[in-house]
Amino acid sequence: MPSQPFHGVLVPVLTPFTPSGDPDLGRFVAFCRWLLDQGAGGLSVFGTTSEANSMSSPERMALLDGLIEAGIPPGKLMPGTGACSITEAATLVRHAVGRGCGGVLLLPPFYYKGVSDDGIFAFVSGVIDKVASSALRIYLYHIPPVAQVGYSLDLVARLIKAYPETVVGLKDSSGDWNNTAALLERCPGFAVFPGSEVFLLDALRKGGAGCITASGNVNVPGIRKAYENWRGPQAETLQAEITTLRKALQAYPMIPALKRIVAHFHKDPDWARVRPPLVALDQAQSAALIAELAMLGFTLGERPRSMAA
Amino acid sequence: MPSQPFHGVLVPVLTPFTPSGDPDLGRFVAFCRWLLDQGAGGLSVFGTTSEANSMSSPERMALLDGLIEAGIPPGKLMPGTGACSITEAATLVRHAVGRGCGGVLLLPPFYYKGVSDDGIFAFVSGVIDKVASSALRIYLYHIPPVAQVGYSLDLVARLIKAYPETVVGLKDSSGDWNNTAALLERCPGFAVFPGSEVFLLDALRKGGAGCITASGNVNVPGIRKAYENWRGPQAETLQAEITTLRKALQAYPMIPALKRIVAHFHKDPDWARVRPPLVALDQAQSAALIAELAMLGFTLGERPRSMAA
Repeated sequence: MPSQPFHGVLVPVLTPFTPSGDPDLGRFVAFCRWLLDQGAGGLSVFGTTSEANSMSSPERMALLDGLIEAGIPPGKLMPGTGACSITEAATLVRHAVGRGCGGVLLLPPFYYKGVSDDGIFAFVSGVIDKVASSALRIYLYHIPPVAQVGYSLDLVARLIKAYPETVVGLKDSSGDWNNTAALLERCPGFAVFPGSEVFLLDALRKGGAGCITASGNVNVPGIRKAYENWRGPQAETLQAEITTLRKALQAYPMIPALKRIVAHFHKDPDWARVRPPLVALDQAQSAALIAELAMLGFTLGERPRSMAA
Repeated sequence: MPSQPFHGVLVPVLTPFTPSGDPDLGRFVAFCRWLLDQGAGGLSVFGTTSEANSMSSPERMALLDGLIEAGIPPGKLMPGTGACSITEAATLVRHAVGRGCGGVLLLPPFYYKGVSDDGIFAFVSGVIDKVASSALRIYLYHIPPVAQVGYSLDLVARLIKAYPETVVGLKDSSGDWNNTAALLERCPGFAVFPGSEVFLLDALRKGGAGCITASGNVNVPGIRKAYENWRGPQAETLQAEITTLRKALQAYPMIPALKRIVAHFHKDPDWARVRPPLVALDQAQSAALIAELAMLGFTLGERPRSMAA
């Protein structure tokens, strides 16, 4: 059984951009620190929510270097290292391992559609062989609603069997509880994180490791409370609370909505910026979102000193 | 009306790989030269058929440099410069323009799904602004069956209006003749290339510029003959011939099948290699394909001297 460096509430961290559209390292460092201070179990920087694929590899590697140089513990980082080519994915993975990251989150190659399990296996295998490091811990990133290409149950089992010390977990953003449940049943000891806190309690009851969730960007405390009390008498109530907030968020384009919330509560309008092809919420959407959150009694809390621009 | 550097039969050139999986510049140069010798009107290197997205940007740029240094006229090249980030796409486009390429083929950003026309417009616009060159000629690459994200008719019209000297054409790999016909009707002077020679005659009759087609890798002479004689009495017969071959090819995974054909007729087994996530044809598929081509009387002709490994 491999060591499992991550559990609890992991956050695919939003990436702030400057007015000229470049990644904003200062705001990024401050935000990552704030998430950890709030109790995040790890930071999946460069996930889908992070607009990672809207950044080049050099931009992603520079941000990762910047985070670590600013003192974010690399063991808490699980950077997304997905790319459509083995070459680029291996470059990103090698860089992350070299910087001491606790693990990496690996998308399957997502350009060609309808590809075979054999082809995806050869891709992951090619990346592992190129990186050739016993320190590497891969978390498979299964997000068929976006990537269209995914890791089937059989493929996951095959990868674990071939690389038991390296392929140690999976983020399941299929949105399909049956898939998460099947993974938990079939792969004991494998760290399965649902991609939404809606499935947190159900997953923990079946041996899940926590969750890696976009809404963690604005609700680490609530989700962490549900995580910590999942065996207690309040479990269902706490789960219902975080599910309610998640469902409210899901009524909006998720990434622009989360950035809008950070911008609003931290009084920092620059945070609302997204990179194309995403589009920021318009004024009406923003107002409706903030009003809805007020009705739910939601607040992000005071902006910590480290968030000052 | 902008100048139109390309017409006729354009080929999204297959990319050969060495036994260690690296791009094989020697075979690539020889193959490109052979395609031009056969009458290709241009080479869309780094298209879908080229497994471009299975290569990193540095690999693609090194291959392009190598082609041009080997004497392939850059004006004949329309490299694919698609990427999910403005940063990476702009790097590829700037490089191609700097090397004097006749044009570039630009995918929309293809990671996020269900994005808006506004978002894709901002992406293309961002790339054009970053490159800032009057020499840039963009051919939009519309291939929704693979990229899932595409250029709608309204978006194409909007891009032409905003950048009339830059956005000069489109490859339509939708497989939907109605879309190609609508583009030809709505955008006179805009160079529309269907992504399959099946639509060649129909497109030419409505003012199309030719076609950019995967099967051009193995059938430039046949498709060129149909292109040159489209107003003549043999037009329908020539179209039927190339359609028959195309449909035979489409019964197999297209890219591995084309590589298998080149490997077979050029007696060069190394050509059959693909990069993951694609998988080469197995022996049974290969045998069936070659037998079917024999029944059609198809041959690739003698391997020219420049193809020697």
